[in-house]
Amino acid sequence: MHKSQLAGFIIDCETDDLESAAEFWSAALGMAVEADPNPEESAYRQLESRPGEVHVEVQQVSHSSRVHLDIETDDIEAEVRRLEKLGARRISHIRRWVVMEAPTGQRFCVVHPQRGNFEPTANSWA
Amino acid sequence: MHKSQLAGFIIDCETDDLESAAEFWSAALGMAVEADPNPEESAYRQLESRPGEVHVEVQQVSHSSRVHLDIETDDIEAEVRRLEKLGARRISHIRRWVVMEAPTGQRFCVVHPQRGNFEPTANSWA
Repeated sequence: MHKSQLAGFIIDCETDDLESAAEFWSAALGMAVEADPNPEESAYRQLESRPGEVHVEVQQVSHSSRVHLDIETDDIEAEVRRLEKLGARRISHIRRWVVMEAPTGQRFCVVHPQRGNFEPTANSWA
Repeated sequence: MHKSQLAGFIIDCETDDLESAAEFWSAALGMAVEADPNPEESAYRQLESRPGEVHVEVQQVSHSSRVHLDIETDDIEAEVRRLEKLGARRISHIRRWVVMEAPTGQRFCVVHPQRGNFEPTANSWA
């Protein structure tokens, strides 16, 4: 048995200026940019969400700008196989996560638990 | 003064089969599809989220599949002007909402309040 749930949404920005991209989305959504311990090494800026809410992050990318979602799980391989049975395709394995493509065409990622409420609220799959 | 906040995310699916698209995302995310009072007239299927969470909906579209976000507000024109000052562009006015494009390239919509917790949690803008 393993567990998974929607982790959140990543706002992928094709930009050389991650700080400006994060500032726009922070102001647009009224969600502060969380301090990053290593801002120069990270391609991500997390926006502060309320407790229990899905994560919203701004990411600097080299592909076209888009929005994608992440599914968090305590067993990435089992979750990828579950999603393959539903019709999703495995695209690539990047560091600690797997990129998949939905039968409806969107790319999404399967990641380790990100949200503080993973254990009590995630779905269990037999 | 007006208010706004992140309303949620719409999974736009280029498909002739909205039910199958909604079923995939429902199963992938472990979120039930809410009953729609007029399923044949609606291009949307809402997934059940927990109280206070952002909305997640599956939409049948004719453009390429993607994910977009909605900002909800009690004053659409004032919110669109606020977002224009931040660098977003107004693209089109469709029925009851406005489509905008972020300076980072993503399209998003400014809509009337959708979430049950709009009044207590939305951000106030002078």
